[in-house]
Amino acid sequence: MNQDVKTLLAAFLCDVWNDGDVAAAARYIAPRYKVHHDPGDPWDGQELDLAGYQERVRVSRAPFPDQRFDIVRMVAEDDAVAPTWHWTGTHLGDLPGFPASGRLIRMSGITLYDVAAGRLAGHWQMIDRLGVYRQLRGG
Amino acid sequence: MNQDVKTLLAAFLCDVWNDGDVAAAARYIAPRYKVHHDPGDPWDGQELDLAGYQERVRVSRAPFPDQRFDIVRMVAEDDAVAPTWHWTGTHLGDLPGFPASGRLIRMSGITLYDVAAGRLAGHWQMIDRLGVYRQLRGG
Repeated sequence: MNQDVKTLLAAFLCDVWNDGDVAAAARYIAPRYKVHHDPGDPWDGQELDLAGYQERVRVSRAPFPDQRFDIVRMVAEDDAVAPTWHWTGTHLGDLPGFPASGRLIRMSGITLYDVAAGRLAGHWQMIDRLGVYRQLRGG
Repeated sequence: MNQDVKTLLAAFLCDVWNDGDVAAAARYIAPRYKVHHDPGDPWDGQELDLAGYQERVRVSRAPFPDQRFDIVRMVAEDDAVAPTWHWTGTHLGDLPGFPASGRLIRMSGITLYDVAAGRLAGHWQMIDRLGVYRQLRGG
């Protein structure tokens, strides 16, 4: 069972976030998805329906259209999965205060996803925001 | 078994990090402890023996002697446990660039600990460094 949860999560990150297949989110996301805790994310604290989640993917991917998550390790139970990950993306679209720079940005993070009835129902996430800002500044 | 791992982790955070009982680390820490990934931590990437881990606890706790981790949720397998957590600490000791301010600092994070033979053998951690810096600056 835990392996099923890991397979689900790996496929989700690949299809939805790496490939940008927003329609595929319908296969992975529960009817109500709660962003429990995600400092710096514009949707932090919100509950999203599928359309809301798809909008989050579109807006988040726009500045880094070639972005890619690479999973380092996953810990799972029946109702949760926590991947550690590295991320890379080329800064090709504007961000508030940071016009597109063409820089390759590297980031790492950990996420704990809720799993319910074979779908992802929310997350608690921590990313290295300070590391990203330093790279965007070019410092 | 997963419950044992969660009980171990909760007791470790309480005894060693919240209470500052550095000697108690001997009950929880494996002979070799690897800091796999912990951006901003002075021991990031290092392998520590027990004395090295105890030194990390002492140095890290000194600026925030009343610090406290509160676990939000844990996901565990036999060989790993990942807690999400909130942290508070009063800034009573100097940090590089930030003299003691008396401010109550709030932080959140996620950690994935390796577990081997009933001991903690390493971690991959992500904390909200940017949020902490903003609070230390008093901005």
